[in-house]
Amino acid sequence: MKNFITTENWSKNELQDILDYAKDLKINRFQKTLKNKSIGLLFFNPSMRTRTSFEIGIKELGGFAVVLQPGKDAWPIEFKLNSIMDNDTEEHIIEVAKVLSEYCDLIAIRAFPKFQNLEEDFSDNLINSFAKYSSVPVVNMETITHPCQELAHILTMQENLGDLTGKDYLLTWTYHPKPLNTAVANSSLLIASKFGMNIKLLCPSEKYILHEKYITAAKQNCKSNNMSFEITHDIDYGYAYADIVYAKSWGSLSFYGNPEEEKIIRDDYKHFIVDGHKMSKTNNALFSHCLPLRRNIKATDEVMDANYCVAIQEAGNRMHVQKSMLSTLLKEK
Amino acid sequence: MKNFITTENWSKNELQDILDYAKDLKINRFQKTLKNKSIGLLFFNPSMRTRTSFEIGIKELGGFAVVLQPGKDAWPIEFKLNSIMDNDTEEHIIEVAKVLSEYCDLIAIRAFPKFQNLEEDFSDNLINSFAKYSSVPVVNMETITHPCQELAHILTMQENLGDLTGKDYLLTWTYHPKPLNTAVANSSLLIASKFGMNIKLLCPSEKYILHEKYITAAKQNCKSNNMSFEITHDIDYGYAYADIVYAKSWGSLSFYGNPEEEKIIRDDYKHFIVDGHKMSKTNNALFSHCLPLRRNIKATDEVMDANYCVAIQEAGNRMHVQKSMLSTLLKEK
Amino acid sequence: MKNFITTENWSKNELQDILDYAKDLKINRFQKTLKNKSIGLLFFNPSMRTRTSFEIGIKELGGFAVVLQPGKDAWPIEFKLNSIMDNDTEEHIIEVAKVLSEYCDLIAIRAFPKFQNLEEDFSDNLINSFAKYSSVPVVNMETITHPCQELAHILTMQENLGDLTGKDYLLTWTYHPKPLNTAVANSSLLIASKFGMNIKLLCPSEKYILHEKYITAAKQNCKSNNMSFEITHDIDYGYAYADIVYAKSWGSLSFYGNPEEEKIIRDDYKHFIVDGHKMSKTNNALFSHCLPLRRNIKATDEVMDANYCVAIQEAGNRMHVQKSMLSTLLKEK
Repeated sequence: MKNFITTENWSKNELQDILDYAKDLKINRFQKTLKNKSIGLLFFNPSMRTRTSFEIGIKELGGFAVVLQPGKDAWPIEFKLNSIMDNDTEEHIIEVAKVLSEYCDLIAIRAFPKFQNLEEDFSDNLINSFAKYSSVPVVNMETITHPCQELAHILTMQENLGDLTGKDYLLTWTYHPKPLNTAVANSSLLIASKFGMNIKLLCPSEKYILHEKYITAAKQNCKSNNMSFEITHDIDYGYAYADIVYAKSWGSLSFYGNPEEEKIIRDDYKHFIVDGHKMSKTNNALFSHCLPLRRNIKATDEVMDANYCVAIQEAGNRMHVQKSMLSTLLKEK
Repeated sequence: MKNFITTENWSKNELQDILDYAKDLKINRFQKTLKNKSIGLLFFNPSMRTRTSFEIGIKELGGFAVVLQPGKDAWPIEFKLNSIMDNDTEEHIIEVAKVLSEYCDLIAIRAFPKFQNLEEDFSDNLINSFAKYSSVPVVNMETITHPCQELAHILTMQENLGDLTGKDYLLTWTYHPKPLNTAVANSSLLIASKFGMNIKLLCPSEKYILHEKYITAAKQNCKSNNMSFEITHDIDYGYAYADIVYAKSWGSLSFYGNPEEEKIIRDDYKHFIVDGHKMSKTNNALFSHCLPLRRNIKATDEVMDANYCVAIQEAGNRMHVQKSMLSTLLKEK
Repeated sequence: MKNFITTENWSKNELQDILDYAKDLKINRFQKTLKNKSIGLLFFNPSMRTRTSFEIGIKELGGFAVVLQPGKDAWPIEFKLNSIMDNDTEEHIIEVAKVLSEYCDLIAIRAFPKFQNLEEDFSDNLINSFAKYSSVPVVNMETITHPCQELAHILTMQENLGDLTGKDYLLTWTYHPKPLNTAVANSSLLIASKFGMNIKLLCPSEKYILHEKYITAAKQNCKSNNMSFEITHDIDYGYAYADIVYAKSWGSLSFYGNPEEEKIIRDDYKHFIVDGHKMSKTNNALFSHCLPLRRNIKATDEVMDANYCVAIQEAGNRMHVQKSMLSTLLKEK
């Protein structure tokens, strides 16, 4: 039985198989690969794209999705072992995971970091606890990484550029008024490096470098693929010759849990917005973003409305890659 | 591709076709007209009847409904073009509509007026923006009009009275402690006039006359059908000889966005409640209301429990007309 | 047409038929007994197990579940007859029940007591009002009793112990920081006595004895089955020779609606926690609990992780007994 918690546990070939089947499902949408399968979708955080694409995708494969929102529709959950539960939590993850495993054939989970304790957030404890006690496969719908977005991102680039090996890939930080989750940025590094591209990570300063865990993993992937990995704070250098520009805003890890303090330095970096001028320095690059996106803050209308913007296509591909991935997991099971 | 945003864009014949097929579906409930179709139901406001009737109706036709509640389950949405999105909204309608169009075959929307800016509310901007950027049909589940209720209302009257041409139709304002949306009242005027009835609009004073837009449209319909259109503040005159009494409470447009000020004059009009005495002045009229209804405030128990009350039948018909309308839209598409 | 509001209205044989068919459905999960049936699930209170098991179970039988949360997704409802509805409620139960009956083939309801008025809570007025005005069967998903849990509980014990006649059954109060609903405790007495067991009710003091209504019913059942019924406050005596230990926390009826006052005496009874030492005094008893359960407060990790703990099995059985019960109700209809 395999989980889909992080692409780090999946080889490039295994992922390419999922992508290839997704291309297939994009043409032949209605299949029976999830027939008589019930899938629990647990949202600890709100969602539009993810929920809609999972619900419809599961339905199109003959399966059934149940949406649960713990702490809202359901009880708050305890994750610590041996805890004396005299606080707010009403049920332990052991029971939650085991009971859901009685009803569901697969459990998918969205649980954003809480921005209080960096170490805890980067341990991805919540979804790993589910995986530990569940007897059915567990799928990540965004925690500290966002592997479904990774698949959609790669599929979209392959559809537009063919083989990605040797392409120049830019992940650029962009401005947002609040510190956001690093998940998509972490995922961008993991997957772009795994698929054999040269990577530049562009961010305002050392304070915005992503977590060592993902930098190290990306460097290793690039090294074994004979590709380069660079971190830069120079916007012109970052965009130069890029084949792909992927933008994402994230909160500085140096000010983790201190949004007010970070705000002071963050507001100096509004010029990281992706605009037509910056895009003109690239090698006719594709632009994408995982959405939602604040227009004229993260990227200009010009960029969003340009032909080179594939964000909508990438969002649409979410459904196809998820259908493929779920079919794969439940077939293997 | 056609939307179902307002019945003003549909001819009487086209609407009658929807009603006739609804009568059919009421007998032969289970069809495959929505097979492999996914329909996004976006609720910016709460709902019981609408959500249940859409969800079950879609299912009965082989389709699949996804319920989304933007700003609750999902992100707050920006509707202004070229906006610099540095405020609360996290995503632009352009992306929302385009992405949902990737997943769904049709998007249905409930979005009540916000009672802050009359002009904005009556422009019906939210649903029209969705229609502009969506590549799939858009359906109105109540905004500043309520066209699904219109269809259910007409079907119910036809079931009880046959041809409606020349019938005397009374739309009466009724009391409610809070100022309510004019949607069903606007819709009542539009549809009763389109189906060839003589119309009386009964309301407490000039301050409670409905928006010019709908008065004008209703007058024009009545004129081209050679029927009368009258506005009256005289309860006895309003009820006299009516064949149909439709009741609705709404907030005064003269005090738009000022519920406290309106409350002072509104509370003088509690006697507009629909009661047995008033109904006895009619031509054995049917009574209906769109529900929800506060008993003994908007209408008495006597009226609600009378045989001439067809409110439950009208509510039940919501499902059948919606199934017919959705089938029509997706067939045409 | 039959409702499933309380097992008091069902004979042991009728319930055993439901249990036997549930055993069948546990092996042959996918049937068509609810084909073309739509079931409204009304949650006035949050739920995880119940919602998931109902939604998936209904789906596995070819039916369709619509989840509604009145007062959250939908309007607050009035339950008093002849009420002048000038308060918060926007719709009367008469209309709610009749309209839902237009759309749904069965209505299931969760409505916990409000802990304000003991008499009102124990009259089970809300669900009985629905049953009065609904034209379709009404099912209890937990009010002042929890008959679905009863079925799951009995099925689980039968699976482990075979015939339950003459077994020694202990219902023990256990500690929880807040006063909880007595529903599962009431249900435990009703069903254990109906299925022919000797019953001990163990609770800290006279103040924690359950409502006379359920004590009387259980005593009568025990009497007609020639079994014993005892109330004890002595922990050692309670556990001695038990074949089954069922634990539940509930609020004292003597302090109904006064959680602060009750807290003072309640906190003296933390030692009622189910632990390995207590379980060692039994006749190798099974342990169960309806979940959610606060570990190391209501029962220790040792008990929860022991082989004799069948709480997960009981939770899993919820789905099977519910599928059987719904099939029975809609077949009879």
